Amino acid sequence: MDATKVRVGVLGAAGKVGQAICAAVDAASDLELVATVDKGDSLDAFVNSQTQVVVDFTHPDVVMDNLHFLVENGIHAVVGTTGFDDERLDRVRSWLADRPEVGVLIAPNFAIGAVLSMRFAQAAARFFDSVEVIELHHPNKADAPSGTAYRTARLIAQARAEAGVAPSPDATTTELDGARGGDVDGVRVHSVRLAGLVAHQEVLLGTQGETLTIRHDSIDRSSFAPGVLLGVREIGKRPGLTVGIDPLLDL
Amino acid sequence: MDATKVRVGVLGAAGKVGQAICAAVDAASDLELVATVDKGDSLDAFVNSQTQVVVDFTHPDVVMDNLHFLVENGIHAVVGTTGFDDERLDRVRSWLADRPEVGVLIAPNFAIGAVLSMRFAQAAARFFDSVEVIELHHPNKADAPSGTAYRTARLIAQARAEAGVAPSPDATTTELDGARGGDVDGVRVHSVRLAGLVAHQEVLLGTQGETLTIRHDSIDRSSFAPGVLLGVREIGKRPGLTVGIDPLLDL
Amino acid sequence: MDATKVRVGVLGAAGKVGQAICAAVDAASDLELVATVDKGDSLDAFVNSQTQVVVDFTHPDVVMDNLHFLVENGIHAVVGTTGFDDERLDRVRSWLADRPEVGVLIAPNFAIGAVLSMRFAQAAARFFDSVEVIELHHPNKADAPSGTAYRTARLIAQARAEAGVAPSPDATTTELDGARGGDVDGVRVHSVRLAGLVAHQEVLLGTQGETLTIRHDSIDRSSFAPGVLLGVREIGKRPGLTVGIDPLLDL
Amino acid sequence: MDATKVRVGVLGAAGKVGQAICAAVDAASDLELVATVDKGDSLDAFVNSQTQVVVDFTHPDVVMDNLHFLVENGIHAVVGTTGFDDERLDRVRSWLADRPEVGVLIAPNFAIGAVLSMRFAQAAARFFDSVEVIELHHPNKADAPSGTAYRTARLIAQARAEAGVAPSPDATTTELDGARGGDVDGVRVHSVRLAGLVAHQEVLLGTQGETLTIRHDSIDRSSFAPGVLLGVREIGKRPGLTVGIDPLLDL
Repeated sequence: MDATKVRVGVLGAAGKVGQAICAAVDAASDLELVATVDKGDSLDAFVNSQTQVVVDFTHPDVVMDNLHFLVENGIHAVVGTTGFDDERLDRVRSWLADRPEVGVLIAPNFAIGAVLSMRFAQAAARFFDSVEVIELHHPNKADAPSGTAYRTARLIAQARAEAGVAPSPDATTTELDGARGGDVDGVRVHSVRLAGLVAHQEVLLGTQGETLTIRHDSIDRSSFAPGVLLGVREIGKRPGLTVGIDPLLDL
Repeated sequence: MDATKVRVGVLGAAGKVGQAICAAVDAASDLELVATVDKGDSLDAFVNSQTQVVVDFTHPDVVMDNLHFLVENGIHAVVGTTGFDDERLDRVRSWLADRPEVGVLIAPNFAIGAVLSMRFAQAAARFFDSVEVIELHHPNKADAPSGTAYRTARLIAQARAEAGVAPSPDATTTELDGARGGDVDGVRVHSVRLAGLVAHQEVLLGTQGETLTIRHDSIDRSSFAPGVLLGVREIGKRPGLTVGIDPLLDL
Repeated sequence: MDATKVRVGVLGAAGKVGQAICAAVDAASDLELVATVDKGDSLDAFVNSQTQVVVDFTHPDVVMDNLHFLVENGIHAVVGTTGFDDERLDRVRSWLADRPEVGVLIAPNFAIGAVLSMRFAQAAARFFDSVEVIELHHPNKADAPSGTAYRTARLIAQARAEAGVAPSPDATTTELDGARGGDVDGVRVHSVRLAGLVAHQEVLLGTQGETLTIRHDSIDRSSFAPGVLLGVREIGKRPGLTVGIDPLLDL
Repeated sequence: MDATKVRVGVLGAAGKVGQAICAAVDAASDLELVATVDKGDSLDAFVNSQTQVVVDFTHPDVVMDNLHFLVENGIHAVVGTTGFDDERLDRVRSWLADRPEVGVLIAPNFAIGAVLSMRFAQAAARFFDSVEVIELHHPNKADAPSGTAYRTARLIAQARAEAGVAPSPDATTTELDGARGGDVDGVRVHSVRLAGLVAHQEVLLGTQGETLTIRHDSIDRSSFAPGVLLGVREIGKRPGLTVGIDPLLDL
C-alpha cells in the first residue's frame, strides 16, 4: 500500500462516465484506483480495500443508499449523480452529523471552466454598464437558453441588483421580433444552434471604451474529469457536506 | 505636375469625412490632392486643376448637380453620398451614355472588411448545414438587427435557396421568448448592444465537426478611407456606372 | 435500382475513415451505398454493382492500382489517400486521356471550412495593411506552425506580392525572443498549443479602423465527410483530373 | 452644497486625460465637480471649495508636492500619475501616518477590465493543464510583449508555481523560429501587431475537453474613466495608502 497516494474507489465503474473516471484516476500519479463497483457488486469492496474516497456517478434510485453506506463506513464521497433536492441534501447532512470527520461533495457540474466562468461573470458584473450572454450549442439541444446560461444570467442579475447598478443601456426602438435575445432577469441571453458546435458560452461585459469577454468552450464529455479529481484530492480536508465545486476553487 | 500620380479632388472637403479623405489622399504616395471644394465654392476648381478623380461625400440635395458637372467635364467620380434610388442611378447612366470614357462609382459602404465579409458569407453559405449571424453594436443604436446584418442574412438565405440547401437544423422545443434570435428569411440573427463596442458582426457557419467564423470589427468611422482610395485608384479603369465596391474587389 | 440516387462504392471501407464515409453516404438521401471493398476483396464488386463513384481512403501502396482499375471501368473516383506527387498525377492524367468521360478528384484536405478559410484569406490579403496568422492545436502536435498555417501564410504572401502590397507595418524595437511569432514569407505566424483544443486557425487582417477575422475550428476527424460527399456529387460533372476541392467550391 | 454628492476636484484639469475625467465626473449623478486646477493655479482652490477627493493625472515632477498638500489638508486623492517607486510610496505612507483618516489611491492602470482579466487569469491558472497569452496591439507599439502581458504571464506563472502545477504540456519537436511565442517564466506569450487594433489581450486556459478564455479589449483611452470614478467613490472609505485598484474590486 502506497501511503503517499489517495486510495480511490469508483461506483458505476462500468458506465461511460465511470470508465472515464477510472482512466483519469489511473493516470494521476497521486491517486490509486483500489476498487471498482457496479450494479450487483457489493459495496463491501470499498471497506475491504481501505478506500478513502469514492466517486459516485450512478443513478438517483441508488445514490442515497450508496451515500449512507459510505458515510457510515467513514469513506469520503464525490458525487456527480443527479436528482438531489433539499430533502435529500438534508438527509445527507443528518448522516454526516454522526460522522463529523467524513466529507461529501455533491456537484451538478464538474466542468471547472464552466464554474469559473460563472463565478468570474458574477464577480465582474457590477463594474460594467452592460452585460449580455451568448450561449452556443449543437442543433440537437431542445431548450434555449441552456441551463447554464439561465444560471449565469441570474447570478449576474443578482450581483448587479445588490450593487445597485442601473440596467444595461439599450436605445433600441425598432426591433425584429427576437433579435435582442431572451430576457432573464433583465440580462439579454442569445442562443445559437449550429452544427459543428458542442457546448460554448460567452459573457460579454462592457463599459466606456473597453469590454471584457469570458468564454467557455466544452468539446467533449470528458471535461468533468479534472473537476472530479480536484474533488477527490480536496474532499478529505473538507468534512461535512459541500455542494458544488465552487468552494474548492478558493476564489 | 507629377504624371505618375492620380490627380484627386475632394468635394465636401471641410466636413468631417471630407477632411479624413483629404488626409488619406495626402498620405498616399501614388495620389496627389489638387483641389478641395466645399459649400459655396465653384466646381471649376476641378477643371482648372486638371483633376482626374473627384471624391464626393456631400449631401443628397447637391450630389446630382455635382455628378452632372463632373461627368460633362470628363472627370471620374467616387461617391459616398447617400440617397441614390433607381431613378437617380438611371439619370447618372444616361449622362454617362454621352461620355463613355468616364467612370462613376457610387457605394453605400466603403468599409472593405464589411463588404468582403458579406461576400465570403454568401460564398460559403451553401456548404454548411447551419448558418447564424451575430451583430454587436454600441447601445445607442436604434435598430436591431443592423442594416448590414439584414443584408448579410438575406444574401446567405438567397445563396442557400439557389443551391437547394435545407434549413439550418434546430431541435429547440422549449424557448424563452427571443432567445433564438430574429428570423431573416430563415437565418437567425442575434443583436447584442453593449457599452464599449462600436460596430461588429460575426457570421457562424457549421457542419459536421467543423465551423467557419467570419468576423468584422469596425472601431472608428475612418474605416471608409481605404475603400475610398481603392475606388480612386480603380475607377479610371472602369468606365460607366459601378454600384458598390464589390466589383473592385475581384472576388 | 433507384435512378435518382448516385450509386457510391467505398474502398478501404473497414478503416476508421472508411466507416465514417459509409455512414455519411448512408445518411444522404441522394446517395446510395452499393458496394464496399476492403483489403483482399475484389474490385469487381464495383463493376457488378454498377457503382458510379468510388471513394478511396486506402494506402499509397495500393491507390494507383485502384485508380487504374476504376478509370478503365469508367467509374469516377474521389480520393483522399495521400502520397500523390507530380509523377503519380501525370500517370492518372494519362489514363484519363483514354477515358475522357471519367472524373477523378484527388484532394489532400476535404475539410470545406479549412479550404474556404484559406481561399478567403488569399482573396482578402491585398486589401489590408496587416495580416497575421494564429493557429491553435492540442499539445501533442509535433510541428509548429501547422502545415495548414504554412500553406495559408504562403498563399497570403503570394497574393500580396502579386498586388504589390507593402509589408505589414511593425514598429517593434524591443522584442522578447519569439514574441512576434515565426516569419513565413513575411507573414507572422503564431502557434498556440493548449490542452482542450483540437485544430483551429485564425487569419487576422487589419486596416485603418477595421479588422476582418477568418476563423476555422475543427473539433473532430469527421470534418472530412461533407467535403467527400460534395466530391461524390460533383465529380460526375467534371471529367478529367481535379486536384483539391477548391474548384468544386466555385469561388 | 449638495450633501448627498461627493465633492470632487481635478488636478491637471486642462490635459487630455484631465478633461475626460472632468466630463466623467460631471456626468455622474452622485459626484459634483467643485474645483479644477492646472499648471500655475493654486492648490488652495481645493480647500476653499471643500473638495473631498482630488483626482491627480499630472506629472512625476509635481505629483509629490500635490499629494503632500492634499494629505495635510485632509483631502483624499486618486492618483494616475506615473513614476511611483518604493521610496515615493514610503514617503506617502509617512505623511498618511500623521493623517490616519485620509485615503490615497495610487494606481498604474485604471482600466477595470484589464485589472479584472489579470486577476481572473491568476485565479484560474492552477486549475488548467495549459495556459498561454495572446496580446494584440496596433502596429506602432515599440515593445513586444506589452507590459500588461508580461505582468499577466508572471502572475499566472507564480500562481501555478505556488500550487505545484506542472508546466504546460508541449510536444513540439520541429519549430519555425519564434512560432511558439516568447517565454515569460514558462508561460508562452504571443504578440500580434495589426493595423485597425488598439489594445487587446486574451488568456487561454485549457484542460481535458474544455477551455476558458478571458479576453480584454480596450478601444480608446477613455477606458480609465470608470476605474477613476470607482476610486473616487471608494477612497473615502479606505484610509491609508492603497496601491492599484484591485483591492477596490472586492474579488
